[in-house]
Amino acid sequence: MAEFSIIDRYFKKNIVQQQDVILGIGDDSALISPPLHQQLVVCTDTLVSGRHFPVDTSAHAIGWKSVAVNLSDIAAMGAKPHSILLALTLPAIDHEWLESFCQGLFDCCAPYQVDLIGGDTTQGPHLTITVTAMGWVESGQAITRSGAQVGDYIVVSGQLGDAAFALAHPNHPLRQRLDYPTPRCELGQQLVSLASSMIDISDGLCQDLSHILQASHVGADIYLESLPIDSALHDLPLTEQWQYALAGGDDYELCFTISPQHYEKLCQLTTSPAFTVIGQIQSKLGLNFMHHQQKQMLDLRGYQHFA
Amino acid sequence: MAEFSIIDRYFKKNIVQQQDVILGIGDDSALISPPLHQQLVVCTDTLVSGRHFPVDTSAHAIGWKSVAVNLSDIAAMGAKPHSILLALTLPAIDHEWLESFCQGLFDCCAPYQVDLIGGDTTQGPHLTITVTAMGWVESGQAITRSGAQVGDYIVVSGQLGDAAFALAHPNHPLRQRLDYPTPRCELGQQLVSLASSMIDISDGLCQDLSHILQASHVGADIYLESLPIDSALHDLPLTEQWQYALAGGDDYELCFTISPQHYEKLCQLTTSPAFTVIGQIQSKLGLNFMHHQQKQMLDLRGYQHFA
Repeated sequence: MAEFSIIDRYFKKNIVQQQDVILGIGDDSALISPPLHQQLVVCTDTLVSGRHFPVDTSAHAIGWKSVAVNLSDIAAMGAKPHSILLALTLPAIDHEWLESFCQGLFDCCAPYQVDLIGGDTTQGPHLTITVTAMGWVESGQAITRSGAQVGDYIVVSGQLGDAAFALAHPNHPLRQRLDYPTPRCELGQQLVSLASSMIDISDGLCQDLSHILQASHVGADIYLESLPIDSALHDLPLTEQWQYALAGGDDYELCFTISPQHYEKLCQLTTSPAFTVIGQIQSKLGLNFMHHQQKQMLDLRGYQHFA
Repeated sequence: MAEFSIIDRYFKKNIVQQQDVILGIGDDSALISPPLHQQLVVCTDTLVSGRHFPVDTSAHAIGWKSVAVNLSDIAAMGAKPHSILLALTLPAIDHEWLESFCQGLFDCCAPYQVDLIGGDTTQGPHLTITVTAMGWVESGQAITRSGAQVGDYIVVSGQLGDAAFALAHPNHPLRQRLDYPTPRCELGQQLVSLASSMIDISDGLCQDLSHILQASHVGADIYLESLPIDSALHDLPLTEQWQYALAGGDDYELCFTISPQHYEKLCQLTTSPAFTVIGQIQSKLGLNFMHHQQKQMLDLRGYQHFA
């Protein structure tokens, strides 16, 4: 089967919804009319089978996750997601797998009105998926990593460590959180003009928060007793819970900093999805872990892409 | 070595040139201010080692080609290329290889003032490179596949079949054309408001021209004696030359249709890079091969991504 047939059969069946997509799949490139007074936000993330998801992951979940991890990066800028490109490298054509993969991909796009507008399908020895996501944000309003201010709260959405726990316990119900991360698109957009900095947590909270601290030239205290950890983990020793929550990868939650005044506003605006204050920005550089006002020394490692 | 170190060491060293790139590498997403009255053109193409380039291809050539094949898709819309994202999947860190790969990538970007603004570096068992390219074209001026008119000339840039010949003869000097395709960015932009349809030739002229014919609901005559074939191939039997020129992949030349009046204008505008009239659009559907006014029956196959 030629590339064209795969594209026609699986990827062109969902009609492009947005009127500003002038050309979708089916030409050399896609064509989009930019909205007025907006800036383009664009990112790309690759998932490699066996590395970014267990090899037994369902095709539907792989399709979902390929989109979700990219929409999470768009959300982390405070932008509204718009469209994606898919670069899919497959060892062979498996129609049942493709059908299910596409369904997962479109299922993740649908709630955010994101259109698949182009891509490339290639044959290669190892299943590898690269999605590029595009979004728009009002000019000058994107939330970067560099705006954290001393005194700001450090806040995370959802729960931390679920995905890392599921990776170690693949038959646990939390596997759903590993396979089907939820990009926090609404929350990301709500934080425009409220959050002072933001990042999405893909490599573990500490590692990702460190990028904010470095870019903003500040330090932070983390309150270990405040970490939002699923009750399934509560029987584990505390240090093990903290390892999952602070250094586990694949959470795809948002971590943002926000002044106490803006945090009040945010709480009036929304309570869903849940978010939790887990620390505060300090002038002294570095990351401190506090447990009920007691300083804790932790030996953590985040996800390293190359061991 | 962590992903961040690789990015810092190799990919952040080239400073972003364009003022409308608000954020390049180093945040969750890149951020671009769209120029006024322009539409965004975006595409993605994957190169898999051993499939899209021979495994003995130099790292420099792989970096070049990863960019070139994408800029070719931007050129085929008549758009000006602007920036790229790189998704690189590597089996292991090889500093010499990375150094050379990056140099090739930047060497292909430089003549077109294209900036690398983001990406993702992952570990995986097989070398796979996905580049996403973005460009801009004046609103409503993009050249699609669907505008070919009966009577239009069919024109190609450069030469046909060089890359396919080099793939079969890897020690031949034409190997340069396989390893270092030239994206026809200037020509593509010159053809705005002149060409009626355009595509880039990646899977062989016949297969790619067929997309224009299908999208435009027309047919074509090809003049075999006019095909621009390198003199290195002239000793081969004619049918073998035609096989390379008509069905060989990896040319990354532009194929466009243009009215005779507009073709006159184009010739006054430019003679470089060379282009050649190789046929004419007909109302009768299908593709006819003519050799000195004699109809030829050819049995050709274009590149199939999945055999």
